[in-house]
Amino acid sequence: MSKGLVVLAYSGGLDTSCILLWLKEQGYDVIAFLANIGQDEDFDAAQKKAEKLGAKKVFIEDLRSEFVQEFIWPAVQANAVYEDRYLLGTSIARPCIARRQVQIARQERAQYVSHGATGKGNDQVRFELTCYALYPQVQVRSDPSETHHLYESGILENPKNHAPSDLYQMTKNPEDSPSEPDVLEIDFAKGVPVRVTHVKEGTSKDTPLELFCYLNEIGGKHGVGRIDIVENRFIGMKSRGIYETPGGTILLHAHLDIETFTMDREVRKIKQSLGIKFSELIYNGFWYSPECEFVRHCIDKSQENVEGRVQLSVFKGQVYILGRESPKSLYNEELVSMDVQGDYDPCDASGFIKINAVRLREHNRLQGAAQKTL
Amino acid sequence: MSKGLVVLAYSGGLDTSCILLWLKEQGYDVIAFLANIGQDEDFDAAQKKAEKLGAKKVFIEDLRSEFVQEFIWPAVQANAVYEDRYLLGTSIARPCIARRQVQIARQERAQYVSHGATGKGNDQVRFELTCYALYPQVQVRSDPSETHHLYESGILENPKNHAPSDLYQMTKNPEDSPSEPDVLEIDFAKGVPVRVTHVKEGTSKDTPLELFCYLNEIGGKHGVGRIDIVENRFIGMKSRGIYETPGGTILLHAHLDIETFTMDREVRKIKQSLGIKFSELIYNGFWYSPECEFVRHCIDKSQENVEGRVQLSVFKGQVYILGRESPKSLYNEELVSMDVQGDYDPCDASGFIKINAVRLREHNRLQGAAQKTL
Amino acid sequence: MSKGLVVLAYSGGLDTSCILLWLKEQGYDVIAFLANIGQDEDFDAAQKKAEKLGAKKVFIEDLRSEFVQEFIWPAVQANAVYEDRYLLGTSIARPCIARRQVQIARQERAQYVSHGATGKGNDQVRFELTCYALYPQVQVRSDPSETHHLYESGILENPKNHAPSDLYQMTKNPEDSPSEPDVLEIDFAKGVPVRVTHVKEGTSKDTPLELFCYLNEIGGKHGVGRIDIVENRFIGMKSRGIYETPGGTILLHAHLDIETFTMDREVRKIKQSLGIKFSELIYNGFWYSPECEFVRHCIDKSQENVEGRVQLSVFKGQVYILGRESPKSLYNEELVSMDVQGDYDPCDASGFIKINAVRLREHNRLQGAAQKTL
Amino acid sequence: MSKGLVVLAYSGGLDTSCILLWLKEQGYDVIAFLANIGQDEDFDAAQKKAEKLGAKKVFIEDLRSEFVQEFIWPAVQANAVYEDRYLLGTSIARPCIARRQVQIARQERAQYVSHGATGKGNDQVRFELTCYALYPQVQVRSDPSETHHLYESGILENPKNHAPSDLYQMTKNPEDSPSEPDVLEIDFAKGVPVRVTHVKEGTSKDTPLELFCYLNEIGGKHGVGRIDIVENRFIGMKSRGIYETPGGTILLHAHLDIETFTMDREVRKIKQSLGIKFSELIYNGFWYSPECEFVRHCIDKSQENVEGRVQLSVFKGQVYILGRESPKSLYNEELVSMDVQGDYDPCDASGFIKINAVRLREHNRLQGAAQKTL
Repeated sequence: MSKGLVVLAYSGGLDTSCILLWLKEQGYDVIAFLANIGQDEDFDAAQKKAEKLGAKKVFIEDLRSEFVQEFIWPAVQANAVYEDRYLLGTSIARPCIARRQVQIARQERAQYVSHGATGKGNDQVRFELTCYALYPQVQVRSDPSETHHLYESGILENPKNHAPSDLYQMTKNPEDSPSEPDVLEIDFAKGVPVRVTHVKEGTSKDTPLELFCYLNEIGGKHGVGRIDIVENRFIGMKSRGIYETPGGTILLHAHLDIETFTMDREVRKIKQSLGIKFSELIYNGFWYSPECEFVRHCIDKSQENVEGRVQLSVFKGQVYILGRESPKSLYNEELVSMDVQGDYDPCDASGFIKINAVRLREHNRLQGAAQKTL
Repeated sequence: MSKGLVVLAYSGGLDTSCILLWLKEQGYDVIAFLANIGQDEDFDAAQKKAEKLGAKKVFIEDLRSEFVQEFIWPAVQANAVYEDRYLLGTSIARPCIARRQVQIARQERAQYVSHGATGKGNDQVRFELTCYALYPQVQVRSDPSETHHLYESGILENPKNHAPSDLYQMTKNPEDSPSEPDVLEIDFAKGVPVRVTHVKEGTSKDTPLELFCYLNEIGGKHGVGRIDIVENRFIGMKSRGIYETPGGTILLHAHLDIETFTMDREVRKIKQSLGIKFSELIYNGFWYSPECEFVRHCIDKSQENVEGRVQLSVFKGQVYILGRESPKSLYNEELVSMDVQGDYDPCDASGFIKINAVRLREHNRLQGAAQKTL
Repeated sequence: MSKGLVVLAYSGGLDTSCILLWLKEQGYDVIAFLANIGQDEDFDAAQKKAEKLGAKKVFIEDLRSEFVQEFIWPAVQANAVYEDRYLLGTSIARPCIARRQVQIARQERAQYVSHGATGKGNDQVRFELTCYALYPQVQVRSDPSETHHLYESGILENPKNHAPSDLYQMTKNPEDSPSEPDVLEIDFAKGVPVRVTHVKEGTSKDTPLELFCYLNEIGGKHGVGRIDIVENRFIGMKSRGIYETPGGTILLHAHLDIETFTMDREVRKIKQSLGIKFSELIYNGFWYSPECEFVRHCIDKSQENVEGRVQLSVFKGQVYILGRESPKSLYNEELVSMDVQGDYDPCDASGFIKINAVRLREHNRLQGAAQKTL
Repeated sequence: MSKGLVVLAYSGGLDTSCILLWLKEQGYDVIAFLANIGQDEDFDAAQKKAEKLGAKKVFIEDLRSEFVQEFIWPAVQANAVYEDRYLLGTSIARPCIARRQVQIARQERAQYVSHGATGKGNDQVRFELTCYALYPQVQVRSDPSETHHLYESGILENPKNHAPSDLYQMTKNPEDSPSEPDVLEIDFAKGVPVRVTHVKEGTSKDTPLELFCYLNEIGGKHGVGRIDIVENRFIGMKSRGIYETPGGTILLHAHLDIETFTMDREVRKIKQSLGIKFSELIYNGFWYSPECEFVRHCIDKSQENVEGRVQLSVFKGQVYILGRESPKSLYNEELVSMDVQGDYDPCDASGFIKINAVRLREHNRLQGAAQKTL
């Protein structure tokens, strides 16, 4: 008799195949769930493999569009970067995948979920927190004995060693990338990209998925978005990570530019700290949490006027902003011009500075008094 | 009879020469003060010019070493970046220059200072706030009629227009830069660089000034640190800025890396927000303020263990971190290894996740209850 | 011929009467505007006085309801307290008054506004920033020679001197207040009070204005909400303030209680920092600013589930929370109970603690290693 | 043969006596450790009880002075308040007790520690995190079956029920407290109290322990510092707490006052957010963590000039500030005076306001433009 039904996040690889077998051995019925979020995978082969290993059912789900729109776009709006460098690629995928997985579990009346993200990693936390948040009654089953040999392992565990050049899969080595830049125009509305145009070639993309894939392609071609970092995991240890985020890096540069162009300075400051908070929440697996919902809402609100077009050049691993324009710009050419006086009275600036100096002078007065008495 | 003595921050250029003449016309005695902070300038010619224009005395002061050590190094410790992009180059120079200027004013018993940074800019604020903070009794004299034609003007005032390629003076165009990277090792102690070594050539620099100049040279050669941004000025308008910070950009990448490697995660978060605050203070001209002194002290404290060596490659406008090592690292190879269980018990991770999920489940319970009653 | 039309915020008192005369002398036509925000004033007498002094028109506007609903309620939602102590009473009134004033100015096609809040105070800033924000073309006219003798002046300027007991107008001296508490129940919905009930007497109020007045009455009777502080003005100086906010203080206690009861812990943290920001913005006069609009929106969003009833006792200058209940509470009696195990597994807590300790142990390991090598 | 040596934090009460027996039954040798942090306890009787129950050794340690100086004083400097209301009394005691406990464990070569703070509480976390942080090799032993019946339980678990009046042990019911206030003067140096004087009686205390006990006595006599709150535990649930902190409440009011009087406005803002962080860290058990050490250092730095004397009145559950004076005050009577013009030029204020309005006007311009096009 079955111990119950488990929905397993199955990748087609060795690790999750082992888990599938182990779950069967333990007496569970297993549904294999494969999420397509754009990875390079033979889904048919994976399905057959899962069936052969004894999966009762196999679900293969194309989550690419919802991944881009519901998960990547909010990260773009937030300028989400963890610890000043990591653009959170896979961290954002996890809640997207786990959400579908618990939907399947609820629909199939499964009490259990399982996944291959054990070990000492962040992905276990991201996966399980999402499951508990969206399906509080669910229980997680995982093989305590399993071990992993991820590419992070081995040589890279010594943070001094260079990353092998064949590690990167999406991006060309900048040394081998084209010696001609590609110039793109990205149009934004409400803080998300709505069209990308290749200036020279005239081609353009305007559905979220196509647009994002195209930026990955162009960024990848020019070796954009490679980083080698040591990061702080939620579970308290430091680990090394080698990441490549070509499309995300282009979008980060472009979004930062159009945002500063159209957003008030003080709104920007508050939004910046919300964006940092958002990044930590994503990294730590709290996409589905009350605070992350709240922060997403606030960030989304801040993007109402983030609209316009950024022109940029992609070349040899780098993104260069060339110019920008917007109907919602707060940039006032006349106000800033050196040749036009306009409403701006230099006396006001003197007064502004003197009032700002009141505090500083008082501080000096007290410090000076202290020194005199020494 | 003289109206009094003015110490003028003199650059040798047209603007400050006009001011010198205007001050004389108004009846002031003028001391010209030229600060050498590493700019490309013929100081002898400038001195002669000032004398010819009627300056009573001319002070030429080499502030380069103190600029690097007392101003740039704290910015490196802070990862100081204004509005996510601007590395604050000239903003940091201003308090260094003005500090010396008020020292001269005090020593020469001058009641007035003057400068050429009028118009609608930040530099006026930075200059005058520093003067008031360090010499509360001082008064600022400036020509209300003067106008400026800075390179920011003209074509660049339309934020859509591309920056002309001859604008950059320190950095080569990445398209024309060498097709071979330079690999450097930078050693840090207490969060500041203490040595840079060119791995292949074996040359190294270890005084602050030489080290910084060398990084400017290498970065410049590879076109590192060019940005084209729209920024928010303290006086409330947006303006466009084209900046190049080759050495600073290399140091930012290297310092971020060694800092994350050696600093506790939670200390880092607190320090990150102090660094953002510090950047705003510098940009707005508050280097000499009680809050900036406080923040500098706190950031300096955070750097006690930021020590070690970063290896990086500079190539075609980009800096790539290759590896790092440190005697003070908090990275624990054994702890993070996938092959070694060590003290880490997977059950602890499950408990950790479940406790973190308590809140999320409660939230879901309430939301679910709300939905049921609809 | 008239120099133009000025709308003057007129109080009926000596200061603004002098300004009215001065504006007339300068050649302006003057419209006197009296806002009723609940102060103790004979509006008829004031109207006659303004007409007698030569006002072309007099507007008397009852802003009490909009003041409570549009200005005080958001401050209650935010737990708005400036510098940990000041509940911002008059600071919140200023944008409400100035908003109506510029509406009148626009409607009457007046190019100028004027007010009596000059001197060295915050109210000038609050008044003028609101006017410029809502009516960018407006100009402010004020008598540069006028002086003020506010009650803050004189004896209170020495911060060591005690405040005279007759200074307070809304609150009884707690020493003379009733020796029996009043017990109230306050019902909240979306973070604002919707009903207050006197438990013993059974009376209740449920329109915003009546409710707020009633809390002022009860709080005043028991001497609640008196403070004597030194505060930091926006213009850079410290000043002493003696304030009384009876109703606001009761609402602050009650709202803090129901909010913590119904809001997720992490949402609360983020909202707390937004509330501090909001308080600074109000104090400094930025109610009508993009950042304040943004923060208000976010805080309002956070209040969606802040609903329920708080019972409290008001007695001798103090407010005591007695109990609370809510249909939206996140408090789970079963979960927290010591007698019920429920879903909570003590092993999870051990794991949670051990994972939280990973970082701390690593820190100790490094510090210990450092000490050994000494 | 013994399983090893356990140092048990023993209270003399039923819970820890049961644990002592359980540990003996499990085969451990037990050292009982009783910390005196000022609680009302018969230490001799507790010692005899522990010996009778089979403790191998009994340590009774008077930690009162170090508790006040090393733990309470930093909390006073920080204005430490958790979630806007809780003054953290027992949360601060825990690391003080556990520190001594691990010192004993190290000295006695014990591999284990134990405590009675299990269940669903915060104290378990605080205790164990301190032990792991200071003695990474230590292991915690606790009886998984034990249950607790704390006073928080029972009737109080329904957050609507009133707290029974006999719950409070340190404070008189304000209704029964004296109808005459006590007026105190508290002298601060570097942000900590150095003397308290009863103005009328002339008595004064100036050692930390005596001073703090005296404030507890005076505050208790007047019923100061009682709160009834629902709070958010670190482990994710909400719980109700009834607390009394008489001395701490007096110190909070006095310190807030002298701090604002002597600290620059902008330093205060930064310090305020560090204080909030510090409070969360204490509450969650992270006193001994790198981030808490860092924050304590920064807060301590901010207190350098927090010096002076505050006069206050304690009456019927409330603390009223009456006046303050300080040699380090940043309050400038002349600057703030309405009768003295001094250096302050009203034109500067106008300029200051206009520059601050630049952003607001631009925002309005854009909004207005948007509305016109509708």
